[in-house]
Amino acid sequence: MCAIGRRTGEILTQAEIPTSSPEETLGKVIEFFKKNGPVVAIGVGAFGPLDLDPSSDTYGHITKTPKAGWSNFDIRGRLAEALQRPVEIETDVGCAGMGEYFYGTAKGINDLLYMTIGTGIGGAHLRNGQVQHGLGYPEMGHLFIPHDKERDPFPGVCPFHGDCFEGLASGPAIEKRAGDKSHQVIDPVRWDLEADYIALALCNLILTMSPKIVVLGGGVTQHGGLVPLVRSRIEELIKDYVPLPMITEASENNAIKGAIRLAAHS
Amino acid sequence: MCAIGRRTGEILTQAEIPTSSPEETLGKVIEFFKKNGPVVAIGVGAFGPLDLDPSSDTYGHITKTPKAGWSNFDIRGRLAEALQRPVEIETDVGCAGMGEYFYGTAKGINDLLYMTIGTGIGGAHLRNGQVQHGLGYPEMGHLFIPHDKERDPFPGVCPFHGDCFEGLASGPAIEKRAGDKSHQVIDPVRWDLEADYIALALCNLILTMSPKIVVLGGGVTQHGGLVPLVRSRIEELIKDYVPLPMITEASENNAIKGAIRLAAHS
Repeated sequence: MCAIGRRTGEILTQAEIPTSSPEETLGKVIEFFKKNGPVVAIGVGAFGPLDLDPSSDTYGHITKTPKAGWSNFDIRGRLAEALQRPVEIETDVGCAGMGEYFYGTAKGINDLLYMTIGTGIGGAHLRNGQVQHGLGYPEMGHLFIPHDKERDPFPGVCPFHGDCFEGLASGPAIEKRAGDKSHQVIDPVRWDLEADYIALALCNLILTMSPKIVVLGGGVTQHGGLVPLVRSRIEELIKDYVPLPMITEASENNAIKGAIRLAAHS
Repeated sequence: MCAIGRRTGEILTQAEIPTSSPEETLGKVIEFFKKNGPVVAIGVGAFGPLDLDPSSDTYGHITKTPKAGWSNFDIRGRLAEALQRPVEIETDVGCAGMGEYFYGTAKGINDLLYMTIGTGIGGAHLRNGQVQHGLGYPEMGHLFIPHDKERDPFPGVCPFHGDCFEGLASGPAIEKRAGDKSHQVIDPVRWDLEADYIALALCNLILTMSPKIVVLGGGVTQHGGLVPLVRSRIEELIKDYVPLPMITEASENNAIKGAIRLAAHS
């Protein structure tokens, strides 16, 4: 998704470009900015794994990925060279968190946890609008959570960890567990189970970083009634042990707006 | 534990005062400082739960605790009034983390996770030497981790959450699971299981905050061979998915030194 916008969060133009090879994809991205620009600076919210260490020789590169052709691709360098503008880069989920903090549901609320649950699961922790990194960046999708195999014998879909949080609760996990939905009359998706897994992971994150607000995005969380169910399960699990944050749904275009804000940082 | 020291981490005098009622305990603490002082400022590393919100009316108070007489006790105010000096307050585990960052094993290493495993389990995350708080402070001891009940039918000892991390892996959990050790000839403690629980919790914390170093303190972690076992279990669990931090044992007097440094902040 490419967009041009203002620091205020206003989106002026946007276009969807399908991801193919890096050269073809970036070629179209550069064309978009040449045609619709000029722009002052560029903010990129990229899929990972990324090198986000500014002191590294491969800063702004995609690192090792199964996506054909993308391993070690210098996405930041390619854009900077072609457009001759400053380029800032962050994870896609980090940008979505920035969009929520600067323009969205969590505007100005410090200690924000943004979590997306869709094809994959990822999270970002923001303090004063800054996405928190350490040695690397967080991979909250892969938390190890309790898995009651009597209740849910499904082994999970994570190629690395099997039944980690993403393995049990991502979109592909839900689909695979439910089987071929076309033959089912009633909803085969076990939303009670899904809410429990999300609640367990969020409890761990709340106990670890004590956010003031949790914003839930991604396709799975758009299922009606899921977010309130998650909220009530968290209350049951934590048992008043720590103060609980607000838990809300994500706002629209958060990642695009966050990337615009990222550009404004440069 | 009371001590007087310098900003350099040098401890000049120290004394152990058993914790009884708040008035008796603080009376002896105040006497220690009057006799051995004067001091420039005071840093307190206290057991919790604490109110650490500087904008709160009950800042620096112990909040609701089962410890007789301590609920709502204004530990910070009592010391400030009696000694007429600035008083800074932090959790005991936060102070231990500060000791490690400013003087200990993790000196100057950013993104430090300090974890203590003893009678209770607690953790602190430090960035630039600052203990990270949010809505409240972290309660990492209560993470929900996988519990294979076939391998370990023990239900856990946490009065709030049963088989959370602290419920399964704290000192009291180890003792209760092992039963009465006096009748056993071989070590009844299942260190393999203990290492697995610690590794699962640390994996979750590493995936969440991506620390550069993890320092393990508390009585349980002093068991010879436990820390290397934890390290190798973490490697097996994470499967190269994220870069792993150094994992080391705590240094001596970390909480006392951290409290001295806290005083120097004031």
